[in-house]
Amino acid sequence: MSIITLTTDFGTDSPYVAAMKGVVLSINPGATLVDVTHAIPPQDVRHAAVVLDDVTGRFPADTIHVAVIDPGVGTDRAMLYARIRRQQYVAPDNGVLSRLARRHAPERVIRLKNPKYWLNPISKTFHGRDIMAPVAAHLSLGVDPAELGPVCEAIGQLEWAEPRRSADRIDGVVLEIDSFGNLITNITADMLGGRPTDHRACVVCSIYETYGVYSVYAQVPGGSFIALIDSSDRLELAIVGDNAARRLGITVGMPVTVAWE
Amino acid sequence: MSIITLTTDFGTDSPYVAAMKGVVLSINPGATLVDVTHAIPPQDVRHAAVVLDDVTGRFPADTIHVAVIDPGVGTDRAMLYARIRRQQYVAPDNGVLSRLARRHAPERVIRLKNPKYWLNPISKTFHGRDIMAPVAAHLSLGVDPAELGPVCEAIGQLEWAEPRRSADRIDGVVLEIDSFGNLITNITADMLGGRPTDHRACVVCSIYETYGVYSVYAQVPGGSFIALIDSSDRLELAIVGDNAARRLGITVGMPVTVAWE
Amino acid sequence: MSIITLTTDFGTDSPYVAAMKGVVLSINPGATLVDVTHAIPPQDVRHAAVVLDDVTGRFPADTIHVAVIDPGVGTDRAMLYARIRRQQYVAPDNGVLSRLARRHAPERVIRLKNPKYWLNPISKTFHGRDIMAPVAAHLSLGVDPAELGPVCEAIGQLEWAEPRRSADRIDGVVLEIDSFGNLITNITADMLGGRPTDHRACVVCSIYETYGVYSVYAQVPGGSFIALIDSSDRLELAIVGDNAARRLGITVGMPVTVAWE
Repeated sequence: MSIITLTTDFGTDSPYVAAMKGVVLSINPGATLVDVTHAIPPQDVRHAAVVLDDVTGRFPADTIHVAVIDPGVGTDRAMLYARIRRQQYVAPDNGVLSRLARRHAPERVIRLKNPKYWLNPISKTFHGRDIMAPVAAHLSLGVDPAELGPVCEAIGQLEWAEPRRSADRIDGVVLEIDSFGNLITNITADMLGGRPTDHRACVVCSIYETYGVYSVYAQVPGGSFIALIDSSDRLELAIVGDNAARRLGITVGMPVTVAWE
Repeated sequence: MSIITLTTDFGTDSPYVAAMKGVVLSINPGATLVDVTHAIPPQDVRHAAVVLDDVTGRFPADTIHVAVIDPGVGTDRAMLYARIRRQQYVAPDNGVLSRLARRHAPERVIRLKNPKYWLNPISKTFHGRDIMAPVAAHLSLGVDPAELGPVCEAIGQLEWAEPRRSADRIDGVVLEIDSFGNLITNITADMLGGRPTDHRACVVCSIYETYGVYSVYAQVPGGSFIALIDSSDRLELAIVGDNAARRLGITVGMPVTVAWE
Repeated sequence: MSIITLTTDFGTDSPYVAAMKGVVLSINPGATLVDVTHAIPPQDVRHAAVVLDDVTGRFPADTIHVAVIDPGVGTDRAMLYARIRRQQYVAPDNGVLSRLARRHAPERVIRLKNPKYWLNPISKTFHGRDIMAPVAAHLSLGVDPAELGPVCEAIGQLEWAEPRRSADRIDGVVLEIDSFGNLITNITADMLGGRPTDHRACVVCSIYETYGVYSVYAQVPGGSFIALIDSSDRLELAIVGDNAARRLGITVGMPVTVAWE
């Protein structure tokens, strides 16, 4: 597998991403490089964890995903190779893989300890370029992950609020805000299964409420605040043709409730 | 032809683009993916239509161009395969191909109806990922467009203001604003042919005017407001070394006149 | 070598980059295209010169780096092919290669004069697309640089302030600001060699000072203003977890001093 994706908090404009690509191509000139995003807010490990969980499953099995959101660079935080849900990951052990690993037990976790597959020398502040990029490139050439270091028993966890269901309501949170300003929640279509999604369902976030769960933006007029099921089967809140997060002042982590009378 | 380009309104930072690339590479790991732009203003079909017309002709014949500006996603709007001017397009039938098709009769238009070449299941809000990306990937593997669905008689049109010429003037509009803030008009070098381009030509936009049509920014001092012929043979208005659109408050659609006394 | 990188001031959102890629792929469909950055501030040749010096050495030998920061487009400014430090460059002769060439004598410099390897016709305002992109594509197919034009004796220079060392201090400047807002100086780790880097070293920029030179952000609490050695072995000033340039109002070119008592 010679596809390598990159997810970082370097900023879309940063030439540091190209430094990593140069390192990869110096080891494997035939690698296919794909940017997932470089716009993770600086050091926002949780945001990156959600993006990796959302997107990486769309790639061919065994694609190598490198995630460099690494506020602990240069400390003794571990770096990991992990195979989860048939994809391969190279990342610091700071919880960035914890959302992926929440429902899919990692098939294999290795701690990166073998400097044979790193640049030499390595810097103390850019392990994305000096360790993670070359490790990914070597993996893409067929190096056995067992060569990279010892087996690791567990990966670092972050707390992920799980929605709570009761007879007449589901309580969740805003999990992420997409580039259109839509509010993606941690409430899934599955959880709504068997319950009414018509006007009897009242969806509330902050001081805003809407009735019914739609499937298509175009079902309602522009400017309407609506709830719908997004393309990853999660409950989403949106203003049709507008940026709901900015307009309503809603941020990640705010509570979202679906209630039935 | 295994080159596939992507044009969307997802925003440069959006990981949704990577989801589409993952889908393409899952079907054709050898595809070459090129981003045209992901910074089309949200749902601005006209802007995307101009970009596709400007840029896609530079690619090798039969490159596959996927355009996902799709405010009608989930409605019964059609999705199309079209071959226009020796390039292939996959896009919603909302006018995004209408500027390309204005002077170049489409060689072939197919309505995407055959779910064999789509993901299964498909979402209701992300047909770029679930229908257009896989269709493009299958085309890149050699699938005959006739497999994708029935022939379509006509593609959706938008109104495009054409410049009006008279004995002593040409009336056009600002067609787009480029990333330097230069004002690109719909008046072409051809229309100026045989007319004076020296100080006798007066070019007016909003309350600003300039005399003469130049060929090179560096012919005049920094800060000058000038008219020149751009790299696509269109009349352009610019402030040398500055952002004319922002500085002068000019937006797409505003009239531009070239007049001779 | 079929890897071609692109560095421009077009803006990350600009479809002009895709026009260049289309031209390259039309000549060499097998080229591997890598974006270094398109966020060079408009016409900021010095900024681009620093980026090229920082990043391009990470690529495989003989990678072709195209740099289109070209305020003199359409004038008689020369365009160059240069081989420097085992990498190949195609760029205007406006100093954008001068930082690379400061310590590494160019191995070969050719002036681009042979229109056989250009588009035909060429525009007067977009030589990146019409001359530099096709030249790079032909080079990637094995064209001998000698075919591109005559040998050029010297490349255009810009003044680069060099740090001054004395017995008890080093005087340098802020060379660039990275995407995290960290201040990268022109003072190298080499220059600090053999001098104390503990609290006896006082680092000053603008009205701000800090004591000691660290190696890792995580050695000090968030919010601290610190000096450290960056991943390219240069002295860097940073606020841990924050944007130092924005917070302190520091811009490129401001003096930085390391002093010992």
